[in-house]
Amino acid sequence: MIIATTIAEVRAQVAEWKRQGLTVGLVPTMGYLHEGHASLIDKAVSMCDKVVASVFVNPTQFGPGEDLETYPRDFKRDCALLTEHGCDMVFHPEVSEMYYEDAATFVEILSDMPKQLCGKTRPIHFRGVCTVVSKLFNIVTPDKAFFGQKDAQQLAIIRRMVRDMAYGIEIVGCPIVREADGLAKSSRNTYLSEEERKAALILSQSIKLAEQLLADGERDADKIVEAMTKKIETEPLAKIDYVSAVDGVTMATVHDVQTPTLFAIAVYIGKTRLIDNTIFE
Amino acid sequence: MIIATTIAEVRAQVAEWKRQGLTVGLVPTMGYLHEGHASLIDKAVSMCDKVVASVFVNPTQFGPGEDLETYPRDFKRDCALLTEHGCDMVFHPEVSEMYYEDAATFVEILSDMPKQLCGKTRPIHFRGVCTVVSKLFNIVTPDKAFFGQKDAQQLAIIRRMVRDMAYGIEIVGCPIVREADGLAKSSRNTYLSEEERKAALILSQSIKLAEQLLADGERDADKIVEAMTKKIETEPLAKIDYVSAVDGVTMATVHDVQTPTLFAIAVYIGKTRLIDNTIFE
Repeated sequence: MIIATTIAEVRAQVAEWKRQGLTVGLVPTMGYLHEGHASLIDKAVSMCDKVVASVFVNPTQFGPGEDLETYPRDFKRDCALLTEHGCDMVFHPEVSEMYYEDAATFVEILSDMPKQLCGKTRPIHFRGVCTVVSKLFNIVTPDKAFFGQKDAQQLAIIRRMVRDMAYGIEIVGCPIVREADGLAKSSRNTYLSEEERKAALILSQSIKLAEQLLADGERDADKIVEAMTKKIETEPLAKIDYVSAVDGVTMATVHDVQTPTLFAIAVYIGKTRLIDNTIFE
Repeated sequence: MIIATTIAEVRAQVAEWKRQGLTVGLVPTMGYLHEGHASLIDKAVSMCDKVVASVFVNPTQFGPGEDLETYPRDFKRDCALLTEHGCDMVFHPEVSEMYYEDAATFVEILSDMPKQLCGKTRPIHFRGVCTVVSKLFNIVTPDKAFFGQKDAQQLAIIRRMVRDMAYGIEIVGCPIVREADGLAKSSRNTYLSEEERKAALILSQSIKLAEQLLADGERDADKIVEAMTKKIETEPLAKIDYVSAVDGVTMATVHDVQTPTLFAIAVYIGKTRLIDNTIFE
């Protein structure tokens, strides 16, 4: 696997691949890779001739007081996983390679969409995501890019950005990967103490409850949200950030489940903020 | 010359050219083309294998009360000029092809740069420019793009955007083209009555005055701006929007001419707002 740290290296290698008529897939990540990321690489390998992963903890999507400094990093282990899954190149730039000191250009969706769900408590988050993903698109110029359904709002926002900005890139969403006991895989799970790790199960349990209610025919989104909320409140270590039912495309609040509806939650377990979701088509 | 009205047509044609190993140049315009635009096409033809021009009056860069509706249009004449100068494809989309009804994604430079000069009275202008130019970059994926020095602030902002967003596109600036009597070529010159056309000469005359003072060794930017202002004020039909000396890259106000300095003016002649400038290296 090629390890590239500069934009110029990536451009040169991708240009060479394109000259050979090969298709290129991009898997953007913040590193500390787990089986969820591995599933994105696998999908990309199955759909593209060459696969580029990026490993970059992007400062512009972290707000003040968030975990930019402590976000877990282990590039050596990331490289081992990427190599094992057939990734062809990893792009691992320094912050200074990605952002000039006076960088000031941002890509932003100026609608309610990025203000819902995670945007309520993380007001600059999706502006940072759109900006860094646009830059990665401009650097790698992939045919397809792969994102996890775990970050459902991010996926919806990237799809909207790609549509609005006329990027000629197909966005492929991939299902949530879970631990054996149901906890959604996340790099931030490493923050959890043993006790918190057990308490964190309340997230996937409340998601399962929503799925069960929907399977039983419940279509009142408010009732489902209420049941999920009550479930989470039974866990003393859990503090709810949000429990929401929103339209799967626009992220607008849904009361009656008619169009594809996203049931999404963000819950603090101790100091660690975790998210989970399910989409009902 | 190929006339394309859809994004899909442009993508397919450019992909075919790239398969053949050809380089592509982009000349974005709002149409009603004049010799200034022709010089951009000529430059592009001389530097690229294939040249794409876009003709699109972009609504997102016009503010309320500006001349979006009355902006001059003559696509047939534009095609004749483009064909004559060797342009290979013109992209002429409807507004609905470029913007979904609920389009909300924008590219913006969040610094003082777009608030200077034209940005003072046109607060959303450069956000619209950055957004539409980004979209054209994403659609055409050119190797080089060509812009006129006449819109000096636009050129500086595009350069900054390309740098910040890591677009792999070379930006080529081309000199101002003038009428025999000195008036800078502009599609908006068509708005001028015979009397206003004569009065409009005050713009290029004040630019010439700045160049003369600089040639004579004057390095006090404020004095030069003052002399230009006085010159323009001698013309009864002229109403100054701004007369400014700014850094050629950052657009920050300059008092002493040491780094490359842009002397830029915007002046209403009757209801028509015209701009002109000179850069002192």
